[in-house]
Amino acid sequence: MGEPNNLYKQQTSVNREKRELMLGQRGCVLWLTGLSGSGKSTIANRVEEILHSRGVLTYLLDGDNVRLGLNKDLGFSAKDRQENIRRIGEVSRLFVDSGLIVLTSFISPYEEDRQSVRRIFNDGEFIEIYIRCDLAVCEQRDPKGLYQKARNGEIKNFTGIDAPYQPPITPEITVDTAKLTVEECANKIIEYLVEHQFISRNKWRD
Amino acid sequence: MGEPNNLYKQQTSVNREKRELMLGQRGCVLWLTGLSGSGKSTIANRVEEILHSRGVLTYLLDGDNVRLGLNKDLGFSAKDRQENIRRIGEVSRLFVDSGLIVLTSFISPYEEDRQSVRRIFNDGEFIEIYIRCDLAVCEQRDPKGLYQKARNGEIKNFTGIDAPYQPPITPEITVDTAKLTVEECANKIIEYLVEHQFISRNKWRD
Repeated sequence: MGEPNNLYKQQTSVNREKRELMLGQRGCVLWLTGLSGSGKSTIANRVEEILHSRGVLTYLLDGDNVRLGLNKDLGFSAKDRQENIRRIGEVSRLFVDSGLIVLTSFISPYEEDRQSVRRIFNDGEFIEIYIRCDLAVCEQRDPKGLYQKARNGEIKNFTGIDAPYQPPITPEITVDTAKLTVEECANKIIEYLVEHQFISRNKWRD
Repeated sequence: MGEPNNLYKQQTSVNREKRELMLGQRGCVLWLTGLSGSGKSTIANRVEEILHSRGVLTYLLDGDNVRLGLNKDLGFSAKDRQENIRRIGEVSRLFVDSGLIVLTSFISPYEEDRQSVRRIFNDGEFIEIYIRCDLAVCEQRDPKGLYQKARNGEIKNFTGIDAPYQPPITPEITVDTAKLTVEECANKIIEYLVEHQFISRNKWRD
């Protein structure tokens, strides 16, 4: 293996365009960001279900398959959290290049980190989705009991309690899970994909 | 975001099995290993072409799309090379989970590193392919002029010159590119995929 400057772009005859043609869809990333308990996973799962039922190939990146594998060397320091998001962005880019519609479900609380990810994508391919929900509602839901632990001081640097959450400044989509049902949120995302031609309109006529 | 012990397995209704059913193929990784100039990229490209022409969805990970993105923070120290291979293994695992047939084209000279990657896969999903070729032949081909630079001392720790290459001990497939044509090598790999039912036999009847 040589030095980095020996790397050069190799032409491959099977490329993104051909894969997208085969799949009948265009690759993009649906980047869900929001507080713990805001509903990211629930909405991501519902969007995947709907897309799959219409023959669209998707993949979901979440704490479960990333933190326990690729990023298992990373902790929760500021630097490691930044690297966590960077790698998720880069892996998303590879999946988008493979033609898939990728969903990511991470709190990703910092605007700067999300902007850094946005920059590695072509225009329009990074679709930032703000899963809005008041902290009080998230804390009331507390599906994993994490807010309780954070309030008790058992978890430090918990987003919304003793660590900041910076809402997206220019999200492509915002859904408020305290006001809309899961189905309404999912449909809003699906409609965006149809309108921006990531998925074929034909597949969506029943 | 909580502490690592707050992570737990979430059930997702769209899973690998459903994606594989949609695609009509089973995910696996074709891990090509061999000296620089042995023919890894050429063979990987040809295998991809053949698979694509039959409607199989593939993705190729190589220095081009990994070293310049996900692993751009890594250098060429022993530790960084190991981390490079570890991450490629983990990303491959995500792609296999997405239902794709992944090809990786990296020298990956150390048996231990390749074994570590093998261990994160289910039995049979990690298909190690030894792209065999005598060093003298690789050096004569020298498609990127790297052996020349290594001999001149312009590149240090170059595999085969002043860094070791450890041939696979238990490769699933071995092809010798000094003895077989590219087409013969590619066909041997395709036949393996058919025989082990990663791709449907039906697709392969002309």
